[in-house]
Amino acid sequence: MHEELKIKGQLAQEAAYQLGLLTAEEKNNALMAMAEALEKNKEEILKANKLDMEKGEANNLSKAFLDRLLLTDGRIKDMADGLRAIAKLEDPIGHIDESWLGAENIQIGKVRVPLGVVGIIYEARPNVTVDAAGLCLKSGNAAFLRGSSDAFNSNLAICRILAAACEQCGVPQGAVQLIEDTSRDCVNQMLKLNEYLDVLIPRGGAGLIKNVVENSTVPVIQTGVGNCHIYIDDKADLEMAVKITVNGKMQRPGVCNALETLLVHQDLAQEFLPLIAAKLTNVELRVCEKAKAYLPDCRLATEEDYATEFHDLILAVKVVQDIDEAIAHIRKYSTKHSEVIVTNDYAHSRKFTHMVDAACVYVNASSRFSDGFQFGFGAEIGISTQKLHARGPMGLKELTSYKYVILGDGQVRK
Amino acid sequence: MHEELKIKGQLAQEAAYQLGLLTAEEKNNALMAMAEALEKNKEEILKANKLDMEKGEANNLSKAFLDRLLLTDGRIKDMADGLRAIAKLEDPIGHIDESWLGAENIQIGKVRVPLGVVGIIYEARPNVTVDAAGLCLKSGNAAFLRGSSDAFNSNLAICRILAAACEQCGVPQGAVQLIEDTSRDCVNQMLKLNEYLDVLIPRGGAGLIKNVVENSTVPVIQTGVGNCHIYIDDKADLEMAVKITVNGKMQRPGVCNALETLLVHQDLAQEFLPLIAAKLTNVELRVCEKAKAYLPDCRLATEEDYATEFHDLILAVKVVQDIDEAIAHIRKYSTKHSEVIVTNDYAHSRKFTHMVDAACVYVNASSRFSDGFQFGFGAEIGISTQKLHARGPMGLKELTSYKYVILGDGQVRK
Repeated sequence: MHEELKIKGQLAQEAAYQLGLLTAEEKNNALMAMAEALEKNKEEILKANKLDMEKGEANNLSKAFLDRLLLTDGRIKDMADGLRAIAKLEDPIGHIDESWLGAENIQIGKVRVPLGVVGIIYEARPNVTVDAAGLCLKSGNAAFLRGSSDAFNSNLAICRILAAACEQCGVPQGAVQLIEDTSRDCVNQMLKLNEYLDVLIPRGGAGLIKNVVENSTVPVIQTGVGNCHIYIDDKADLEMAVKITVNGKMQRPGVCNALETLLVHQDLAQEFLPLIAAKLTNVELRVCEKAKAYLPDCRLATEEDYATEFHDLILAVKVVQDIDEAIAHIRKYSTKHSEVIVTNDYAHSRKFTHMVDAACVYVNASSRFSDGFQFGFGAEIGISTQKLHARGPMGLKELTSYKYVILGDGQVRK
Repeated sequence: MHEELKIKGQLAQEAAYQLGLLTAEEKNNALMAMAEALEKNKEEILKANKLDMEKGEANNLSKAFLDRLLLTDGRIKDMADGLRAIAKLEDPIGHIDESWLGAENIQIGKVRVPLGVVGIIYEARPNVTVDAAGLCLKSGNAAFLRGSSDAFNSNLAICRILAAACEQCGVPQGAVQLIEDTSRDCVNQMLKLNEYLDVLIPRGGAGLIKNVVENSTVPVIQTGVGNCHIYIDDKADLEMAVKITVNGKMQRPGVCNALETLLVHQDLAQEFLPLIAAKLTNVELRVCEKAKAYLPDCRLATEEDYATEFHDLILAVKVVQDIDEAIAHIRKYSTKHSEVIVTNDYAHSRKFTHMVDAACVYVNASSRFSDGFQFGFGAEIGISTQKLHARGPMGLKELTSYKYVILGDGQVRK
């Protein structure tokens, strides 16, 4: 077995056991100390980040990529404040979800416990290192982190600082670890590390997620791929439809809860399409034959366009006959992330929410709300697009499991 | 791709979508029709079962194995009654677990939905075919079944009868399917069928489960391996300790919630060990050095004995210094299924339930209660020994996921 993975895996497993027994106060003290340590050692972080930025520039990485990689005084403060915010959240561990009497009056309690060792494989953003470490610690899990080589120096500096702060607060060694081997082979071996990892969460582009899902034998929580649709029903308020569509497409086009396809009821197409096109400034529309009648300057959409998560100022457009065609289109192309209907028809709202299978199904609200903070979870480790364990925005509770504690008075089974 | 898996996978996926939209009444009618069909066609089932029994006898399968394989009038009635019992359970689908207001007052509801297509890989018992089909149908999932070749004829007859009954009740074709290729290669391809399967549940021996966990890229719920311990604390009521130990070891030694190791506090060893040995008639005790002083006729336990799930009338025994040594022993050898302390010491009961990491942790009750029926779930698809998604006994709810339905009035994200 890969030596670094084995050594750190054993450490993480031992740490996870101890972490599960810490009190909320002990964990919160460590989170506050981690925040302070980040700010106190910001020069070390900025110096390490400079190395990554220089390498990135030499490798001609894109501006957008370099921007995600860049750390500044402000961004380090934001990361520290993120940890302080996590410290303020309620501790999910030890919460008794339910308690009841079973056979022979045994008293059964369902008690929240940590998952154990959480492996996170992620791409450039160094703030994921801080986020993941903080969320794992608060939920009593050991964080087993594998960032990208592009952010290696930044991640290493951050992780050293966080781990040192943890240990000074009595948090066991191994609670927060970064895997330093940035080879592809190391990732592939991590996908088979069932002996030490309880779960793997990939955070990054579609290629990364596909590789993890297709090759991991460790349980995976799949996140982030969002080919999201909005359907403007014939009974929609057009002003609301414009507002929600513009927000979904333009507010932050590069994220997974942004809109990628606009479906419009045929009865509204003539009125709505020129209206929305005028508001979607700088957005390239790729349209169906019917829509082209009202948007003659737009290029025709291909099958592939409807299947694509553009992550960009591009929107596929299709005119549909009715709500059934809209639902069928969504069923065919959806990645089951977030889907929206705009309507004032009660029966249509019921039909859409009942028949559309996705993590988040919206009536008259923007898909951009698919987010742990917007949901009120106070934190987010990602947005699950699978059905097992957790679906949709994942907060602290989604980083936990449970155990049954059964109290008896000598009962035996008959 | 394997042709049968592909065709049936597509059918299952389509059926799963339709199943998610059925009402409780439609599903219950189908369950009652399935029960009736089993009884009405019992001659066909018995005939098919006879073929399997003859083949099993020719292959010199063990008596215990043949007994699990055998179907009789009584057993067919039990299977039918099992389906009727499932029909009476509450439908988990559509239940709103929670509802709250998120950012900008969007109304968020967490609604139970089916998992989708549930793959089940299982060994000899043909009743698993009926159980799994019934539980999947009630929870709105398509059942994608792969039984062992030893029970092939029985499973095929049962599955044909169930599927026909389903279709007569308007349940979509593909809701219950048996994979007829019984080759090992087919199982291995099923483990990679991410395109069609939402989850895989292996039910059977340790070898089967190991193969599925280590090779599946489809999300797995790991079930059934139970190396369960009982610790008799120095503050235990000895009469209660005897009763719970005897029940845990002897009532049904071949199941996963039976006891495999007895840990005894050193202060009680002299009194308790002869007492329990006298009650554990026909049970072979494999004991530590200290215990041998009081049980001189028993053979010494090896390291391997402590790690073994005997599934038989064998019990490993160890005398421990105190509760801490007991907890440490459990931590080292436990498969995290079910662990028991017998004590009248309040602090010890708290310590044990807090520090022992297992699906079910008992104070003064038998490990044999780790069971969906005993817990009051009214059904059981298996006992999970992993932490992701479900842990411990799994009933209908554990065969579901959820979606968020968000109702707004035109809200957009700021």
